[in-house]
This record gives sequence, structure tokens and C-alpha cells, in this order.
Amino acid sequence: MLALLTPTDPAWVQAAAADLPALLSDHAHCEIKAAQSALSLVARYAGEMPGLVEPLTELAREEAEHFSQVHAQLGQRDQRLGLPASDRYVTQLLAAARLHRHDALPALLDKLLVAALIEGRSCERFKLLSEHLAQAELRAFYRQLMISEARHFTLFCTLAADCFGQAESRARLATLADREAAIVQQLPLGPQVHG
Amino acid sequence: MLALLTPTDPAWVQAAAADLPALLSDHAHCEIKAAQSALSLVARYAGEMPGLVEPLTELAREEAEHFSQVHAQLGQRDQRLGLPASDRYVTQLLAAARLHRHDALPALLDKLLVAALIEGRSCERFKLLSEHLAQAELRAFYRQLMISEARHFTLFCTLAADCFGQAESRARLATLADREAAIVQQLPLGPQVHG
Repeated sequence: MLALLTPTDPAWVQAAAADLPALLSDHAHCEIKAAQSALSLVARYAGEMPGLVEPLTELAREEAEHFSQVHAQLGQRDQRLGLPASDRYVTQLLAAARLHRHDALPALLDKLLVAALIEGRSCERFKLLSEHLAQAELRAFYRQLMISEARHFTLFCTLAADCFGQAESRARLATLADREAAIVQQLPLGPQVHG
Repeated sequence: MLALLTPTDPAWVQAAAADLPALLSDHAHCEIKAAQSALSLVARYAGEMPGLVEPLTELAREEAEHFSQVHAQLGQRDQRLGLPASDRYVTQLLAAARLHRHDALPALLDKLLVAALIEGRSCERFKLLSEHLAQAELRAFYRQLMISEARHFTLFCTLAADCFGQAESRARLATLADREAAIVQQLPLGPQVHG
């Protein structure tokens, strides 16, 4: 349902749980980046596609709220947010989307679908955390966020279909999902949402 | 009260009112940039200064909401958001803050105070719009936003004082306000919030 063609290696949960402060810090930065990315899409494309404004502005507000919640989890553990680091998964996914893209494929379509895949992969991993972490409170926390990520996945797929048609966006999603699976399989496992 | 050392040229209101779609579009982009800038401060400095997180995350959410409201004003006029353009006022203000900055002055102090000055100048200009625009509804709209900008000015000044002390932040604000006045006086008047 999340367009993912390969499941996350089950060993990832152990790697993530082994350093919760690092995982939470990376996760907090993911939420900020998601908010900023939604605002960047609005700034760049609202002129052509005014229908993006309301859902993506609301999404940015929600991601900022999620950041606060994740930051509070760090605070409860007397931990501080680390410095932002580049996210290899996202960088490689964006690069893979640009590969062999012909002019007929709009950049906005890829940006929406890459965002959908990131939300889909986050959803899958939050589900793993919600099932396997030792702390009941964190399991419940990630269960809530898993539901949000699933909703965001659907939102980005819907926006892509609204802007570019169902058939074209589905076909492109399948292509990008194929590349996403290849990227996920070769990234080392670590205490990062996409690590 | 807003730390501004020179008033905006009264002719600016006419230049702004002469092209309301351009003004609203520029204003909408200012709100997005303000939201993104608040999130960037959080991402970069929350580790050192956890006290920034709640106020700046909330500010980002509010700025995103203001963006929606300004975008709705464009929609009511059958206008669309223009492409983002660089804001010479902000660019020059950031460059002026870097000028002659010695190592003892933290970059975060300047970022907070530059943000305060931008909010202060926006507040002053929204006051002018709230008094002089022909449309009663837009006057009321800008009166509300003027109040928000005044609150944001105070927020950034308070955060600077909390992080670096009252005396140091006041002294630095005076220096930066002096440079801000020089920048404002040489920018051409146009339908931009800071133009």
C-alpha cells in the first residue's frame, strides 16, 4: 500500500534502538526538513498549482508540531538535538529521480512522488519501532506518527495525481519505487530514520 | 519601540498600493521565508539553546498560517503567487551584520537581532498599509498582521537577551539598527514589503 518494493531489514530496529538519542535527533531533523520541504514546494509551485497551498501549508504546520513532540522526547531523556546532517537516503533518492528524466516529466511530479516515498518508508519504519521498541510510551508515540506518515504518503500521491493525472503519476511512482528499493538495500543500518 | 532609526518614506505606501498583486505576492513569500528561517534557527541552534525550540516552532507555524491568509487575499483578487525573488533588504541586512563582526559576537545573536529588525520594519510598514490603503478589508487585515509583527519583534529581542544577556543584545541591536536605517534609505521604493 505504501509503494515500497522491499521491506526494511529487520536488523534495522536493533541498530536504531541501540542509540535512541541519535535516532530521536535524526528523526527530529527529518520533521524539520519535511516542514521546510513542504514550504519550498509551496513557494516554488503555488503560482502554477494553487491547489497545493492549503494541504502543504497545513502539512508544514503539522511537521513543525511533530518536531516539537520529538524534541520533547529528547528532553525527557536529558538529551539535546544534534547538529543537522545530510540524509544520504533522501539525497540519493532525489538524484535517482533526476536520472534519465526526460523533459516531458515535470520536476514537480518527481518532487511530490519522492516526498510520497519518503513518507512511505518512514511509515514502514515507524511501524517497526511501534512494534519492537522496549519502551511502551515510545511504541505508542511511533504508532501515532506511523498513522500520520501513512496519511502524508496518501496526500502526496493524491496531489501528484491531481496535478498530473492518475496514470502518469502511478507509472512514475512505480519507476521511482524501484530506485528507492535499490537505495534502501545498500545503505548501512544505523540509528537514523532512513539509515 | 521597534528599534527603527529612520521612518519609511511616506511615498512607499503609494508605490506599494499601485500594484497590490505584486505587494501581496512579495508579502506571501516573506511569510514563507520567515517560517523557514525560524525552522533553520531551530535546526542549527536547538542543541545549544533548547529554549529556542518552543517559541520558534510556534512562530514557524504562525508564519505558515499567515502565508495561507495572504495567499487567500491573492485568490480573492484572481491573482496567483509569483515566483520567489531574493529580498535585497534582507540580503543586505545579513551582509551588514557580518561586517566587522569579531569572534566574541556570536552568529546566533546577530541572526536573532536581524530577525527582530525585519519584524520591526514589517510592523512599521503594515501600520502604514493599515492606515492608507483604499480597501477597508485590507486595512483591517494589515492591522492584525501589524500586531503580530510587533509581537515577533519583541520575541526575537527577548530570545536574544535570554541567550546573550540584556546589555550585550541591546548594544548590538543599536549597531545593527544603524546599519538597517542606512539600507532602507537607499533601496528604491516599490510594491514589496521591504522594497
